Amino acid sequence: MEDKIKEALTASNILNNINKPNDIKKVSADEYSALATEIREFLISNISVTGGHLASNLGVVELTMALHLSLNFPEDRLVWDVGHQAYTHKILTGRKEGFRKLRTYEGLSGFPKIKESDCDAFDTGHSSTSISAALGLAKARDLQKENYNVFAVIGDGALSGGMSFEALNNAARLQSNMVIILNDNNMSINENVGGMATYLGKVRTSVKYNGFKEGIERVLSTLPKGKSVIDRLRRSKDSIKRLFIPGMLFEDMGLTYIGPIDGHNIEQLLSAINSAKNMKEAVIIHVITKKGKGYKLAEKNPSKYHGIDPFIIETGEVKKKSTKSTISYTDKFAKTLVSLAEKDEKIVAITAAMPSGTGLIKFAKRYPKRFFDVGIAEEHAVTFAAGLAVGGMKPVVAIYSTFLQRAYDQLLHDVCINSIPVVFAIDRAGIVGSDGETHQGIFDISYLLTMPNMTVMAPKNGQEFEDMLTFAVNHNGPIAIRYPRGKVYSGLGEFRAPIEYGKSELLYSEKDILLLAYGNMVEVANEVRNQLKEQGYSVSLVNVRFVAPFDEELLTKLLPTHRYVVTLEENINSGGFGQKIVGFLCKNNYNDNKYIRISLPDAFIPQGDADLLRKEYGIDAQSVVNKILSEVEVSNRM
Amino acid sequence: MEDKIKEALTASNILNNINKPNDIKKVSADEYSALATEIREFLISNISVTGGHLASNLGVVELTMALHLSLNFPEDRLVWDVGHQAYTHKILTGRKEGFRKLRTYEGLSGFPKIKESDCDAFDTGHSSTSISAALGLAKARDLQKENYNVFAVIGDGALSGGMSFEALNNAARLQSNMVIILNDNNMSINENVGGMATYLGKVRTSVKYNGFKEGIERVLSTLPKGKSVIDRLRRSKDSIKRLFIPGMLFEDMGLTYIGPIDGHNIEQLLSAINSAKNMKEAVIIHVITKKGKGYKLAEKNPSKYHGIDPFIIETGEVKKKSTKSTISYTDKFAKTLVSLAEKDEKIVAITAAMPSGTGLIKFAKRYPKRFFDVGIAEEHAVTFAAGLAVGGMKPVVAIYSTFLQRAYDQLLHDVCINSIPVVFAIDRAGIVGSDGETHQGIFDISYLLTMPNMTVMAPKNGQEFEDMLTFAVNHNGPIAIRYPRGKVYSGLGEFRAPIEYGKSELLYSEKDILLLAYGNMVEVANEVRNQLKEQGYSVSLVNVRFVAPFDEELLTKLLPTHRYVVTLEENINSGGFGQKIVGFLCKNNYNDNKYIRISLPDAFIPQGDADLLRKEYGIDAQSVVNKILSEVEVSNRM
Repeated sequence: MEDKIKEALTASNILNNINKPNDIKKVSADEYSALATEIREFLISNISVTGGHLASNLGVVELTMALHLSLNFPEDRLVWDVGHQAYTHKILTGRKEGFRKLRTYEGLSGFPKIKESDCDAFDTGHSSTSISAALGLAKARDLQKENYNVFAVIGDGALSGGMSFEALNNAARLQSNMVIILNDNNMSINENVGGMATYLGKVRTSVKYNGFKEGIERVLSTLPKGKSVIDRLRRSKDSIKRLFIPGMLFEDMGLTYIGPIDGHNIEQLLSAINSAKNMKEAVIIHVITKKGKGYKLAEKNPSKYHGIDPFIIETGEVKKKSTKSTISYTDKFAKTLVSLAEKDEKIVAITAAMPSGTGLIKFAKRYPKRFFDVGIAEEHAVTFAAGLAVGGMKPVVAIYSTFLQRAYDQLLHDVCINSIPVVFAIDRAGIVGSDGETHQGIFDISYLLTMPNMTVMAPKNGQEFEDMLTFAVNHNGPIAIRYPRGKVYSGLGEFRAPIEYGKSELLYSEKDILLLAYGNMVEVANEVRNQLKEQGYSVSLVNVRFVAPFDEELLTKLLPTHRYVVTLEENINSGGFGQKIVGFLCKNNYNDNKYIRISLPDAFIPQGDADLLRKEYGIDAQSVVNKILSEVEVSNRM
Repeated sequence: MEDKIKEALTASNILNNINKPNDIKKVSADEYSALATEIREFLISNISVTGGHLASNLGVVELTMALHLSLNFPEDRLVWDVGHQAYTHKILTGRKEGFRKLRTYEGLSGFPKIKESDCDAFDTGHSSTSISAALGLAKARDLQKENYNVFAVIGDGALSGGMSFEALNNAARLQSNMVIILNDNNMSINENVGGMATYLGKVRTSVKYNGFKEGIERVLSTLPKGKSVIDRLRRSKDSIKRLFIPGMLFEDMGLTYIGPIDGHNIEQLLSAINSAKNMKEAVIIHVITKKGKGYKLAEKNPSKYHGIDPFIIETGEVKKKSTKSTISYTDKFAKTLVSLAEKDEKIVAITAAMPSGTGLIKFAKRYPKRFFDVGIAEEHAVTFAAGLAVGGMKPVVAIYSTFLQRAYDQLLHDVCINSIPVVFAIDRAGIVGSDGETHQGIFDISYLLTMPNMTVMAPKNGQEFEDMLTFAVNHNGPIAIRYPRGKVYSGLGEFRAPIEYGKSELLYSEKDILLLAYGNMVEVANEVRNQLKEQGYSVSLVNVRFVAPFDEELLTKLLPTHRYVVTLEENINSGGFGQKIVGFLCKNNYNDNKYIRISLPDAFIPQGDADLLRKEYGIDAQSVVNKILSEVEVSNRM
């Protein structure tokens, strides 16, 4: 594995001499093309070993080179929107070696990190934040009378997020320089959607207008002067622009537009970047790139190679991690929803630019009219769903845990106040692994529990997930099901009590130690129970099912016979399920019960292999057993 | 007081006959103007008695009349963005009588409410949600092959919220009808800002272009055929439009644009609405209105009459509620920040369309270059501030509690992950009163406590607020200060220990009963203590100061001598301060301590007088005393 990386590193010639920021400036123009090829080879060979974001990075090789040829690092500030396309930027700023440990625990991040390099101006991860951050940097520069350049690079997909519009709206007022590079590859992770995408499509094909522009200017110049209309036409810079210049939408919004530019032509890029740098306002450079550029398979199927596990370069096939081949929670969701929708034509599905990631692509193919990909627009997605529900449909919104955070107020204000029946399918809940801090879905339980009227469920295994979805689409109120990344758990299949609102499922009823677990922690709890049993303890296990409202009745029944109450959750502690239980114990004076909390700490969890992180943060079975035993022993000594 | 309303009701002639939905259709066209006047008189006389939103409602009288003349209720669906401009809609749908109890507990809401009338299609309160909701309703209609009209009315201010852009982006794909009325009064609560506002300004003055358009068409028709450029010009519908039609920005985004229309001319409005209704796509009607129309004082100063307390019609002066004239927390914030900024030129201030509501208008006047009103764009505001901080400034973001919810992810993802020093001045925290469910700031503590690295403070009185702000602008990390609507508390002035990070302030140190309170609940706790003392109890009082991180050390020290631990907060229970304390007690096996929680329930709190609501929900001094005594008695009996 390591060999391949070394090979790629030594094979390259020009790249060998680029070992720190600004080294690229020593490369001569006739070597740019060779360097681009070397960088692509480096990216492909590395990512084929470590996994990571491939297609987006292949698309911006020349763009990043041009930026580094024109800007000075770390003086100038470059903000990468989302940030998964910053690999070349990392390569060019002295972080080549880090790629050996890309996206691993304590290794190189797959995203820009201020803490990793002073060439990373702002941490990103979620979409559509870059223009806001860059505008802040530009204003800070101006106020302090400093003199550096501020650039943001944002994809056309990220532009569908309302926050970028808010930022553009404000950037229009800037009376000094800031450059926004619109990296237009006509893609989010999947195809782009909406009015803006259609508009950009028109602009992309507008290069032919250039000839037209020259034409009309020639004609106008031959016309007799004095004809008032033509004269006004000629004098009005705005009107001429309206006719011929693409990107007028941005000009209308008060930005200066340059483009479209071929994003794989370094000369064109440099010329645009250099002129944009010298303007006294916010400039948008519209750059057309090809996602996956240089790796045929990724060019053809950029969604597949957006974020990819280690793969075989020649065939593009993902290297199988294990022979165990069961389906994922995402697959289960997709399959179940399609089958539910077959029987109930009121069911509609909504995603925010994640049709493949959420599995909804299956639904989309089967029920195209009942499927809505709204772009990277979580806020809209939620309130749109509320509108659909008020209009009589049964909307299912599938969003990753960490992205649903972006619609906190829409959940609370537009869905919960009126208890509107919308189903939230929250994928990638809990630890997700190598994407790191920005992508760990460890806050959802805490923020959902603050929302009155919101029902929150989590399935112990695949079949329960199916049952919960079936239950949810028929529930008359807001309801969320959170489930983890990865394969479904197929254990505990013998337990399949019908879902009853607000009722937990008592899997094993014994005494002394009571384990209360939800979601994927039921699997852990089951293993914990087995280990404790082996050591002679008597242990009950409750599959919580409903995190909100939780089953007070069952708990009340079990407490007298259980000295130790353990809650297990893959979520932060603050505001989580454990705190609910503690509150309940306290309120009801269960002072004889000893409470043990298993959860993630109130902290951001860095990148790393998910199972490794679970160990590291003490929520794997062995850690839990140890913690319980230590408490039980202390308690027995007391 | 009642007399004035009765007078207004009986004085009106045409309005007398409008008592249920669609009654307006019986009014003849020559009476429209008189009816508009009657409605305005009704609004002014009512609001002068009850208080409420005046200027926005005066601005849309004709627009609402035209909508009701053209649409059928409740069949057709009309979504009011924000919703504080829906008074005329309420008047025309059988709710005139309700205005006697406008915005009071159990009275008529100041916002649309599905539960209040089937003519209210969707509940609103926060900005920029209407197009999303309407698009959901339109899609639901189409999927169910129903046939009603869907309209959204959105102000130009609300259009600066990114969510409306997300919705427009998606509305562009609709292949059936939906009408968006852009109510352009060139205002949010204060003046509008940004590129879009400038653009709309240009469009507003573009009516003169109409003559120009006819001119060029005449000229073009006289030119010889065959000249290719001119020919292409003539054939290209798009190019012609680009030259002459205002609103091209919306057309570029894929919407059909009609306008600008005089929003006080019912005939013009009806013609636009009726043609828009018959199109097969999403249509935007750009309507120009005057905020405050018909009441001179409000026309001149619409910000003052946006939301207003009872006032004297003749003079426009607000009727004083009491003779007590101290300053509000908002004033205190404004004054303190200006004085801090004088000494520290790195301090900058950011608001999201609330310069007067947050008091920052004072700062803006003094330091215009260091002040940023970003429009109704909370997400941008927060990340923009993060950018400013990374760039070396000390940003202070002033936003109401309930609106900061809209930037949950930006707080977590863009500020907290890197622990970036941004100060959040959270005004209107806790119960705000008559605006109701959508505006109560009762979730902030819960969602802020889920955020690692976030420091959360709340001042007991005015002078402590000053000290906290001074502390906050020099703190090296994210820090929030939450404070309530209304006058500063000036009691407990004798306690002014210097602010020390994470340290509470022990006001009275006794034994038995320990009161832990933060923010405005310290005043309540002090009164509770006095009452309990009178009854012979021994009571300690801690001013918590830092809700996060809380002072574990002090608590640990006090617990052995206090059997009863009471937390007092004006926030929901779930995820709040009380839960933190319970968790702490439980974790540390303080089983001898009895815990009593005073907080708001995990529920939405309706409109009403703030003090009345506090009583109703058991957080006023008397209720707290009763609750404590009942627990103490029970406990003593046990």
